Amino acid sequence: MALDAGNKREFKVVGTRVSRPDGLDKVTGKAMYGADASAPGMLIGRVLRSPHAHARIVSIDTSAAEALKGVKAVVTSADFGDPGDDFHRDIRDNVLARGKVLYDGHAVAAVAAISKSVAKDALRLIDVVYEELPHVTDVDAAMAPDSPVVQEGRADESVPEGWSQNVTGHCEFGHGDVEAGFAKADTIVERTFKTAATHQGYIEPHACLATLGNDGRGELWCCTQGPYLVRSVCAAILGIEASQLRVTASEIGGGFGGKTTVFIEPVALALARKSGKPVKMVMRRDEVFRATGPTVSASMDVKIGMTKDGHITAGQAKLRYQGGAFPNETVVMGAQSAFAAYDLEAVQTLGWNVMTNRPKEVAYRAPGAPMAIYAVESVVDELCQKLKLDPLEVRLQNAARKGTLSSYGPTFNDIGLAATLEAAKAHPHYSAPLGPRQGRGLSCGFWFNFGGNTCVSLNLNPDGTVGVAEGNPDIGGSRASISMMAAEELGIPYDKVRTVITDTNSLGFNDTTDGSRVTFAVGLATIEAARAAIKVMCARVAKIWGIDEDAVVWEDGAAKPSGPNAGEFPPMSIAEIAAIADNTGGPIAGHHEVNADGAGVSFGVHLVDAEVDPETGATKILRYTVFQDAGKAVHPDYVEGQMQGGAVQGIGWALNEEYIYGEDGRLQNPGFLDYRVPVASDLPEIDTVILEIPNPGHPYGVRGVGETPIVPPLAAISNAVSRATGVRMTELPMSPPKLLKAMSGQ
Amino acid sequence: MALDAGNKREFKVVGTRVSRPDGLDKVTGKAMYGADASAPGMLIGRVLRSPHAHARIVSIDTSAAEALKGVKAVVTSADFGDPGDDFHRDIRDNVLARGKVLYDGHAVAAVAAISKSVAKDALRLIDVVYEELPHVTDVDAAMAPDSPVVQEGRADESVPEGWSQNVTGHCEFGHGDVEAGFAKADTIVERTFKTAATHQGYIEPHACLATLGNDGRGELWCCTQGPYLVRSVCAAILGIEASQLRVTASEIGGGFGGKTTVFIEPVALALARKSGKPVKMVMRRDEVFRATGPTVSASMDVKIGMTKDGHITAGQAKLRYQGGAFPNETVVMGAQSAFAAYDLEAVQTLGWNVMTNRPKEVAYRAPGAPMAIYAVESVVDELCQKLKLDPLEVRLQNAARKGTLSSYGPTFNDIGLAATLEAAKAHPHYSAPLGPRQGRGLSCGFWFNFGGNTCVSLNLNPDGTVGVAEGNPDIGGSRASISMMAAEELGIPYDKVRTVITDTNSLGFNDTTDGSRVTFAVGLATIEAARAAIKVMCARVAKIWGIDEDAVVWEDGAAKPSGPNAGEFPPMSIAEIAAIADNTGGPIAGHHEVNADGAGVSFGVHLVDAEVDPETGATKILRYTVFQDAGKAVHPDYVEGQMQGGAVQGIGWALNEEYIYGEDGRLQNPGFLDYRVPVASDLPEIDTVILEIPNPGHPYGVRGVGETPIVPPLAAISNAVSRATGVRMTELPMSPPKLLKAMSGQ
Repeated sequence: MALDAGNKREFKVVGTRVSRPDGLDKVTGKAMYGADASAPGMLIGRVLRSPHAHARIVSIDTSAAEALKGVKAVVTSADFGDPGDDFHRDIRDNVLARGKVLYDGHAVAAVAAISKSVAKDALRLIDVVYEELPHVTDVDAAMAPDSPVVQEGRADESVPEGWSQNVTGHCEFGHGDVEAGFAKADTIVERTFKTAATHQGYIEPHACLATLGNDGRGELWCCTQGPYLVRSVCAAILGIEASQLRVTASEIGGGFGGKTTVFIEPVALALARKSGKPVKMVMRRDEVFRATGPTVSASMDVKIGMTKDGHITAGQAKLRYQGGAFPNETVVMGAQSAFAAYDLEAVQTLGWNVMTNRPKEVAYRAPGAPMAIYAVESVVDELCQKLKLDPLEVRLQNAARKGTLSSYGPTFNDIGLAATLEAAKAHPHYSAPLGPRQGRGLSCGFWFNFGGNTCVSLNLNPDGTVGVAEGNPDIGGSRASISMMAAEELGIPYDKVRTVITDTNSLGFNDTTDGSRVTFAVGLATIEAARAAIKVMCARVAKIWGIDEDAVVWEDGAAKPSGPNAGEFPPMSIAEIAAIADNTGGPIAGHHEVNADGAGVSFGVHLVDAEVDPETGATKILRYTVFQDAGKAVHPDYVEGQMQGGAVQGIGWALNEEYIYGEDGRLQNPGFLDYRVPVASDLPEIDTVILEIPNPGHPYGVRGVGETPIVPPLAAISNAVSRATGVRMTELPMSPPKLLKAMSGQ
Repeated sequence: MALDAGNKREFKVVGTRVSRPDGLDKVTGKAMYGADASAPGMLIGRVLRSPHAHARIVSIDTSAAEALKGVKAVVTSADFGDPGDDFHRDIRDNVLARGKVLYDGHAVAAVAAISKSVAKDALRLIDVVYEELPHVTDVDAAMAPDSPVVQEGRADESVPEGWSQNVTGHCEFGHGDVEAGFAKADTIVERTFKTAATHQGYIEPHACLATLGNDGRGELWCCTQGPYLVRSVCAAILGIEASQLRVTASEIGGGFGGKTTVFIEPVALALARKSGKPVKMVMRRDEVFRATGPTVSASMDVKIGMTKDGHITAGQAKLRYQGGAFPNETVVMGAQSAFAAYDLEAVQTLGWNVMTNRPKEVAYRAPGAPMAIYAVESVVDELCQKLKLDPLEVRLQNAARKGTLSSYGPTFNDIGLAATLEAAKAHPHYSAPLGPRQGRGLSCGFWFNFGGNTCVSLNLNPDGTVGVAEGNPDIGGSRASISMMAAEELGIPYDKVRTVITDTNSLGFNDTTDGSRVTFAVGLATIEAARAAIKVMCARVAKIWGIDEDAVVWEDGAAKPSGPNAGEFPPMSIAEIAAIADNTGGPIAGHHEVNADGAGVSFGVHLVDAEVDPETGATKILRYTVFQDAGKAVHPDYVEGQMQGGAVQGIGWALNEEYIYGEDGRLQNPGFLDYRVPVASDLPEIDTVILEIPNPGHPYGVRGVGETPIVPPLAAISNAVSRATGVRMTELPMSPPKLLKAMSGQ
């Protein structure tokens, strides 16, 4: 179901549901993922990991491992130089610990050997002497002045003196006088919330194949969302020139933000350089859980004031995000997005970044936003309950609209929040009756969406078909949507276009596939590249016809004479132009390079019905509907897939997923048996309603789509559960033991 | 040693001897060749080949092979459709025989199985019933009216009625009245020559890895000179769209023209489509000899008239080229090039293309030229002997020069033949004394050189280094020379540029790496792409400085203010511009697409001293010097390498290499033990003298280099041997038995 809210352009290809170009290869097992590449003489790399949450590395003796037959290289942090800045140093020290191990599973050393079993044996022969140190894994505990310090001296100038050194950064956003706002309120609710760290849960573990010569030239095949970032980070850590490292992104079995940095890639390159051989590394699932990025966990205070007729007078949020053993800035995006759905006179958000002895935080779909908005939307819901107001009407009443001064600074342009709320209000789901022990929850969600550096080359093949080369790994169907936009602009059928993701050295620099940027920014660049190619084609045809270039127009996939020359020649199709390219100057192409802005923020509203079993504390999701402004939905199947996928990941986050650390600081559930993601039987059909409020920053009105859908589920489900049980829930996940405990009033 | 003949531009990078970018990977075994790619679940493909030189295929029963456990697909010609034209039909029928087998080793069927041994067993289970037919393998025999006919009805309209149907095409070039010319001569020599078919002799056999889905989308990794040609030919044969087949060229272990077509690639794709699995195929050496392209063998009559003072009054050549079992047009290039080195008033060359029961001819370095020029240069040498004239002076006297109406039509522009002859004349080699049984031979050589369709993308990396993406496999050092030209134009060091060969779908269409076109055409496109990037960089800097774009000039790798703004700002280096690309519009690139012309013909002169052992008939090459006009020599090491390599291949062709067919029409020497290429101990150091007569068709004066050096050796060595033995040799190879026979006067 898609509601068109004013996009007037008539599309022929965009908006249809064409078949996906990667489908057959994926279902028949031919798609090449990270672990699927091999090279003759290849070695197997394995990593030795810390058994301690926090310890000083007294010594590492690799001599016995090096002496083992079949071992070709052993590396430690000593094999990396100084990349020159904290960003790269932190990644370097995360992929191989330097001086201290900072969390359970932190990589300490790695070997490359002729087989997996030799590599495993070699790891056992590495003698690491540790001096254990006290550790901390909870965000609030880590902020306490007497907390063990994860890393000393990492706070930036925003952190007041005297704070725990685990607090590395502070931020503040907002406008107006919140105290005056609260004074105008009839009711104020102030609550503290906690959310657990959750993993992105991609099916495919990290894997790569690396070669690197002493001449600094290398090749890296890996599973990543950001091959250019992998290139620059690895080059910095290894002390080689980025341009000499060619990175090819494999097909990707899920990323969700978790594949926007490196873990094994620099290690594999270091092993390859030392051994002189190609090195393949594949993480085990327990390594993925222990040492790759979960999202931040959070502790948050939210205070909102409301008049009895539902007007929000002020909002305040204090966010404490733990991002693992290294400084991070995710709380900034949490603080910016917390109140983004509201048009407020007075709003203040404060954020603190906190280190703990946990793995280094990595982006996870709308990083920082879901937890902050969970807290805000929970309090709004509680206010509506207290004041006996309709939660949808209240949100509509206070909704951010075009012209609203957002809580984080910018003034909004065309946005779809109100339309999305109206769509939810009009939907049968909102007025469907509920049974006993059932509750209906509602939440708004928001994401910024990004643009960024993007390069596209569009080439006309000799047979009249079109190739598009782009540099952003396809994590959500972008090969289809990019081909569709090229076909649309050129006026040819979709199946005449093939889009490929090329390597880092075959195209200019591209930012990572993240920030919901690809369909927007690569699409924009593709449209511009197509326009450039059309210009070339018209010029070639003008030459043949002997008329002015401006007298040739492009319509329906063909060049036509216009103006004084209209009708003088029959139209010349793209295939006919391709056939004579040789004789009119050579191959025909269009290119576009851009640092795209104008991505257009996106809002969604999720509606969920939940039932809680009073005996087991288990929550069943009965009905789920996602409403979202997608801008122009290029390929509605994929848009719906993003909306459904976000909801599903949010359901897991809300109900079951969490990192469980023992008293010893070690992760107790590093596998999918104990880290419980939703399975098909946990889920209802997720209904979707796409709204299409055109983004004025894109020629076709496209917005980012992929991240917004993970923002509302946490609060929507918590609100549903709270209403079903009559107990206001303030901690995620709402796993059965926690729910039972809450319902029992303990 | 390099002689600069007038190129005035001062180069900083071009002309130096930088290190090769592929060297380390190649010597350490990390370079990925055709057989080095693998995929999970991959099958092994093998080919069943004809044991007959000529036979009708009565039936092929593949059922037993298909039933064998582990066999996943069997294909025959029935698995290919009609590609619609003779060019593609001939390739189709060469890679899997249709109706008849046309030569010993002709592919009949292929299997894909889970292992090499299962595949081998399966081949034995394919039951092919043949009806043997009479065969012909010699060119003169094939032209006889009563010859067995290889394929009926393949002659084009140029062939007179009543000729053998094995003659498929005829051509004629020249100008003036040759009969009148001969009448003016004091002496006329007329001789008949024969040359054997020789193989390109690349070290790496053909190999590929293919996937292809029922949706017509495929990936092909293969060892080729022409990935775009592989793409279009395979697509035509398999009935899929070219754009849906992504071809990636592997590192190449030699091609020399022999990898400009397909053999196993369409078969592997057909097996992949039928089995639904990736299929890998690697040819054995005997398969390479029996079924991939040798060059044509030739039978030729040459008649030249000369006045007693050395003026050539007329020349005539009649060339009969056998190109195996399919029509070919190689004789056209032989007929065009035969007399290209001479400025003649009357010249005529006639050519006939002839089919025999031999493998389909494939390009081999300057295809068609070496044999024709061998015959002409032998007769010129004999005339000089007869008239007691200096063979070098005679060539200088009759040399083609700027303004000469060439024997094949065009009027020459700046050419370097006379300069090259002068350099040979001045060289110590020409006047060095000879011992008994030693002879000195001389020959001119010529090649057209081509330009063609070429695309280059040049991208500025964020770290200020530069990436060049091109689509032509590097068979002679082009990655280095292209990087050098990019560095030269941009004014940055060579090691700041990395050039990669990208796949067919990441860049626009490129003609094959052949015709000595790459350094010329890709270089030209690279220079233009660099200029486009410089334009973008100057515009970005102008924006920052707030001055007019035209007031920014590019010098020494930096933008500088000029004109009224000169000195107003300090120069901004390419690295500084790269660092601010984000904020000035995004990534910076330059692109160029062109169908390049103006490649500039190339001439060479080879000087060789040989000694013949009267007892064994063995020829020893004592001294060898190559003189060649290379235009601007971008990387002199590689130019010298081409010159040396051509000489070495020519030595093999002249002295030992030949396809030996038995009475049964089967190849008797399909291996390097019996097909004797020169080894190091057969060779002296090959000295080189590069002349640099700038090609006006290229911004840096570059000409093609790679093919010309294989043209002169045949005649130069034959002339040396003839003078050493006192017997005029007219057949190649001059193997010991043939020489002994000739010396004994039989």
